[in-house]
Amino acid sequence: MYRLVIACPDCVGIVARVSSFIAAQGGWLTEASYHADREAGWFFMRTEIRADSLPVSLQEFAHRFADEVAGQYGMQWHVSDSARKQQVALLASKASHCLADLLYRWSAGELDCGIPCVIANHPGHEALVRHYGLPYHCVPFGADRAAAFAAIADLLGHYRADTVVLARFMQVIPPALCDAWAGRMINIHHSFLPSFAGAQPYRQAYDRGVKLIGATCHYVTAELDAGPIIEQDVARVSHRDSPDDLVRLGRDVEKAVLARGLRAHLEDRVIIHGNKTVILD
Amino acid sequence: MYRLVIACPDCVGIVARVSSFIAAQGGWLTEASYHADREAGWFFMRTEIRADSLPVSLQEFAHRFADEVAGQYGMQWHVSDSARKQQVALLASKASHCLADLLYRWSAGELDCGIPCVIANHPGHEALVRHYGLPYHCVPFGADRAAAFAAIADLLGHYRADTVVLARFMQVIPPALCDAWAGRMINIHHSFLPSFAGAQPYRQAYDRGVKLIGATCHYVTAELDAGPIIEQDVARVSHRDSPDDLVRLGRDVEKAVLARGLRAHLEDRVIIHGNKTVILD
Amino acid sequence: MYRLVIACPDCVGIVARVSSFIAAQGGWLTEASYHADREAGWFFMRTEIRADSLPVSLQEFAHRFADEVAGQYGMQWHVSDSARKQQVALLASKASHCLADLLYRWSAGELDCGIPCVIANHPGHEALVRHYGLPYHCVPFGADRAAAFAAIADLLGHYRADTVVLARFMQVIPPALCDAWAGRMINIHHSFLPSFAGAQPYRQAYDRGVKLIGATCHYVTAELDAGPIIEQDVARVSHRDSPDDLVRLGRDVEKAVLARGLRAHLEDRVIIHGNKTVILD
Amino acid sequence: MYRLVIACPDCVGIVARVSSFIAAQGGWLTEASYHADREAGWFFMRTEIRADSLPVSLQEFAHRFADEVAGQYGMQWHVSDSARKQQVALLASKASHCLADLLYRWSAGELDCGIPCVIANHPGHEALVRHYGLPYHCVPFGADRAAAFAAIADLLGHYRADTVVLARFMQVIPPALCDAWAGRMINIHHSFLPSFAGAQPYRQAYDRGVKLIGATCHYVTAELDAGPIIEQDVARVSHRDSPDDLVRLGRDVEKAVLARGLRAHLEDRVIIHGNKTVILD
Repeated sequence: MYRLVIACPDCVGIVARVSSFIAAQGGWLTEASYHADREAGWFFMRTEIRADSLPVSLQEFAHRFADEVAGQYGMQWHVSDSARKQQVALLASKASHCLADLLYRWSAGELDCGIPCVIANHPGHEALVRHYGLPYHCVPFGADRAAAFAAIADLLGHYRADTVVLARFMQVIPPALCDAWAGRMINIHHSFLPSFAGAQPYRQAYDRGVKLIGATCHYVTAELDAGPIIEQDVARVSHRDSPDDLVRLGRDVEKAVLARGLRAHLEDRVIIHGNKTVILD
Repeated sequence: MYRLVIACPDCVGIVARVSSFIAAQGGWLTEASYHADREAGWFFMRTEIRADSLPVSLQEFAHRFADEVAGQYGMQWHVSDSARKQQVALLASKASHCLADLLYRWSAGELDCGIPCVIANHPGHEALVRHYGLPYHCVPFGADRAAAFAAIADLLGHYRADTVVLARFMQVIPPALCDAWAGRMINIHHSFLPSFAGAQPYRQAYDRGVKLIGATCHYVTAELDAGPIIEQDVARVSHRDSPDDLVRLGRDVEKAVLARGLRAHLEDRVIIHGNKTVILD
Repeated sequence: MYRLVIACPDCVGIVARVSSFIAAQGGWLTEASYHADREAGWFFMRTEIRADSLPVSLQEFAHRFADEVAGQYGMQWHVSDSARKQQVALLASKASHCLADLLYRWSAGELDCGIPCVIANHPGHEALVRHYGLPYHCVPFGADRAAAFAAIADLLGHYRADTVVLARFMQVIPPALCDAWAGRMINIHHSFLPSFAGAQPYRQAYDRGVKLIGATCHYVTAELDAGPIIEQDVARVSHRDSPDDLVRLGRDVEKAVLARGLRAHLEDRVIIHGNKTVILD
Repeated sequence: MYRLVIACPDCVGIVARVSSFIAAQGGWLTEASYHADREAGWFFMRTEIRADSLPVSLQEFAHRFADEVAGQYGMQWHVSDSARKQQVALLASKASHCLADLLYRWSAGELDCGIPCVIANHPGHEALVRHYGLPYHCVPFGADRAAAFAAIADLLGHYRADTVVLARFMQVIPPALCDAWAGRMINIHHSFLPSFAGAQPYRQAYDRGVKLIGATCHYVTAELDAGPIIEQDVARVSHRDSPDDLVRLGRDVEKAVLARGLRAHLEDRVIIHGNKTVILD
């Protein structure tokens, strides 16, 4: 399956132009979604094309599309082949629930990606990661945080990661790394953002006495917990729940939200526009 | 806004053909949704076109579309003008919560339709309906049910209703009336179908000890509570809730589900295929 | 039904002492709920006693309870008779959805209270309120806000309101009025607090790109939108939803959350402790 | 913590009698929940008592309670010590998601139990179970189903299981085994019961076109999928979801519902009454 994802200023005839181009190549659409943001005057589009319906290579298809269509409409676009799995590196700290959840889903075929390595600043996950037959690297965060992040950047390069998932990785990513991975680094924050950004969100939620707790999957930007939101969900809590109960109940929300957000990202359904996302399902 | 809704056997090039046709007329798409049902081999499409972008009348547009596109692909299709509001007749029995909810939403502009009349087999809603300035007809259901349904059919004809909503109307619709209004008569059933079809679903739910109750908005067919489902939702209940509590809690679910289902219908988002629906949002 | 609601420092034997006292008077418990907040070292209790099981008056029962039990444990407590309906004044501004919803629920017997009057700073709700046979007062908010609030305070006194509900009343309540009605003035805020306090929360939510919107029912305190939370809920939204769509979708959440919060308040299920609530169901 | 769980015909003074008895022993209640089922005229009660607040052994406490309280009220009751972990045997078939989820939760301390063994009629889970350091037994189901169930019964006896969890174990349990484990054998069914009992519930759900799918955690009885329901939940689906998508989306619901149901069971919060449950939280 080829996936063609487009964002451009809205105008008349875009769908016709794109779909005619695809049809002219012989392409069979199996999915197509659009969104016109009236306020922003911007148009978003995602199509899935059966790879075997195109007589040309992905490269040739992309070349022709750039030539014949994209330039004319000022499109930001990319096309990907679902047969080429993205490589997703996982970063974790002490908590293992998101890591274990993603590894299980991956092994069960729920996540259409490769996992080239797991990196953590905590030694405790080695047995878990080895159980899934994956490389595990422990990068301790001592006094020299810059060195630790440099080591992580090296590992990500070494393993040729396409996407990085912060599966409850509790170190603040330095701005340069945020920029280098813009749109490709996904975090799960354990609150319903923008409430309770920063440290100890469940404690903050407990102290405020909220009746629902939440989790937010978002792209990482230099401003902490403020990047484009991909997915959120909540769970009901009550006065009976201690801070530890919130942590426990929240784990299930975090796992579900991160998995859904990552899945959308892997299927090229997420388009970032400004500080928001369009999710074309 | 013109809305073009299409269902046809799936094949290559449908989107291109339709969108090129629209573009050739100068039409500006503001929304477009597709669905290809791989199991059924069937394709569904809904587009919204800015009325002021088309130099031709709706009639002429439809004529050309039939001629140039629809026949070739064996399409079931229709095009409607959102400026022409559907006329939705409401039928009720004793319970007023769905009726009152729809009337309020209508008066608040949430439902893009006219309400030509309210018909009930119970006298109690007259003041409510008059408050909204609408005609109210009470058709009692005594020994002669056929006569009562004939009276209702006459009223629906008299008021030129396009769609009928059974807003907790508790009489079983005769098959001939179901057929006459196929795809245009919407019911709210107070259970999560297919559980608890028929009478007293909350009592059934109470006796079974379920932990969630639900409501189902569906098109009416001759088989009771078995028509194509448009929308469903649930609410959590517990052992503390008596049958009366279930009735009370269920009312909120019924209101929300019926309003969402009707709204989708009014926006031409619902395509019936077999005994199921495709909701193109 | 008598409802006895207690909060006190936790220690051994409270339940035994209270329930023995009730049993000694011949009282039959029909409901009983407890909560021990381990972190705060505080104990909360609510019991319902069949009024006809007590041979003494409510006054006498309260007198004995104060004498024999409450003092010994340093209890904050009150006892109420469900046969004496609370009088709940409703305040509204331009938007009518919460007002209309509460009025309908009240007329349908869902809210166990009287509504002595509806006060608004907008003339538009008179017909609606008159439909329910209730007094309506329009208090315009011009240059002299203090005078307007004085007029409202007078009306609340005149109608002997026990509780005030701000059913989307969009004026900031002055601190003196907040204090006078502490624990008895309930607001619905159209966001999932603490996110998006203050003005135009749906616009804020739209701009942040959240994937869920919410509503919060809370007691009013002098600090805006920061009082003890009674109830919250959320609804899913997407990039397809405009700010107007958020407003529309949010209305349903607001109505449901306010009705549930008010109902809990009317049934004496809410105990305020610090800036949080315990909801004993 | 000692947990005292009681069910008996309702009458005046039960709470007082029980709590006075506990107080007389010096017991400190940390949690207490009650429910009076008015329709059934039955009373349910659960209390947690700090073990260190009682000067007597659990055995002595139980002996006295039987003597002084339970007989007089015709109580069905039991008392347990949370320090003595229940032993929960897990049974699985081919699908591993519920099994893997429970094992992870157990290892993370979310489930307060021991897992003496995992039994499956499929060889594929050995590595997973060994990763958690637990015994794994594969009991194939060939022609002689009776022999296979006899082997399972032997294993459950050998490992002294207190509770059995059917973590997507897809063999119908024979009536004698159901009876032997009445109230102690928990199943997760992959539908919102009573809809879609029996085989292939997701296929049934797909064919019916429901808009929500669900899962149900219930005690096993001789009648298939008809035992007392402990917990249920649902997830939203659409026309876009294939039968395989329903299976995938349903897995998350199944995992959550089973974990919550088992947790309630392990904390002695579930009282079975007739074919329903009271969950005292």
